[in-house]
Amino acid sequence: MAETLVLHEDPRSGNCYKIKLTAALLGLPLLTQQYDIMAGETRTPHFRSQVNPNGRIPVLQIGAGDTARFLPESNAACWYLADGSALVPQDRFQRADMLRWMFFEQYNHEPNIATLRFWLHFVGEANLSSQQRSQIVVKRMAGQDALELIDDHLERNDWFVGEAVSLADIALFAYTHVADAGGFALGDFGHIGRWIERVEALPGFAAMD
Amino acid sequence: MAETLVLHEDPRSGNCYKIKLTAALLGLPLLTQQYDIMAGETRTPHFRSQVNPNGRIPVLQIGAGDTARFLPESNAACWYLADGSALVPQDRFQRADMLRWMFFEQYNHEPNIATLRFWLHFVGEANLSSQQRSQIVVKRMAGQDALELIDDHLERNDWFVGEAVSLADIALFAYTHVADAGGFALGDFGHIGRWIERVEALPGFAAMD
Repeated sequence: MAETLVLHEDPRSGNCYKIKLTAALLGLPLLTQQYDIMAGETRTPHFRSQVNPNGRIPVLQIGAGDTARFLPESNAACWYLADGSALVPQDRFQRADMLRWMFFEQYNHEPNIATLRFWLHFVGEANLSSQQRSQIVVKRMAGQDALELIDDHLERNDWFVGEAVSLADIALFAYTHVADAGGFALGDFGHIGRWIERVEALPGFAAMD
Repeated sequence: MAETLVLHEDPRSGNCYKIKLTAALLGLPLLTQQYDIMAGETRTPHFRSQVNPNGRIPVLQIGAGDTARFLPESNAACWYLADGSALVPQDRFQRADMLRWMFFEQYNHEPNIATLRFWLHFVGEANLSSQQRSQIVVKRMAGQDALELIDDHLERNDWFVGEAVSLADIALFAYTHVADAGGFALGDFGHIGRWIERVEALPGFAAMD
């Protein structure tokens, strides 16, 4: 890819890390521009009008200046980088099945596991609103269900799709490998543990900051 | 596609409707097998072991008998059907940008707009748990934000990506066009209203049951 790639990110975010890990595995140079989400730096009118109307990071910027294009949503940005590479299966069913795990990640995994990590590890339980605090038990159970489902899948498979690493593994790795910080007992999931070791052994692997 | 296609569905679900609309626009025959989600028919051990370990519909079944394959997650199933068709843009950025809107739909739109429709229109407010009831205000605000964001995009664009309908429009149409049933005032969003008319005028369009 000849175009300049800039990741608008907060390095504490697993969603941002997915994109950095994808770029690392593909050997693509990626510049970064950092924002402090705790200070609301992605909710400003300038950020919304110039980078992402949804007020969220990550956003992958492709190109620079007047012709720059902006791509929000972590898994869509990973797809852009990996489209046509070995990280996206050639087989029609496998390609859709990879997206199946990536949608599962955003619907069943991230809103529970990433949100509890954010609330408990970064915001702090004492600083949560009562509305947030009332959701902890439900998110704990749903996150536990998601971890059990992927542990069960990894009991029978080395990778999420087919016989090789794909974007599904990258998307699910990001918040799974730091689930302890959200109060999940990762040590209870042996198949997940061995899969984490497989991901970390990939050529070009880059750890989260 | 020569293989038998069976949609495991509940016809009340907009996520199921997405797949039926995709098949209709592509002229693909689609069999259906129906489940009553209100009666827990997708949470049984049999359903989890044979169709989807996540206990959810929709699931697209491809083929039959011992070689049948099962694809959960509505947007992944739409992708499988439309892969290689005009509903998936050829351009690399546009293809990723289509996925961007589909991930937005599952993260920011469906959990608010579809959930409120399910709770208020099908379950009934009086039957909600206190935990669910405590989330109504937050989901109302987040759903309103999602509708404002897409209305703003549609002020400047006829379709979500490029100059033609894509899976992004189908994914977002499913729960947007019935948002009234979740208590959202769809009449307040004129650009959404005109986009709904454009979708309904597509050749092959099929209405929700």
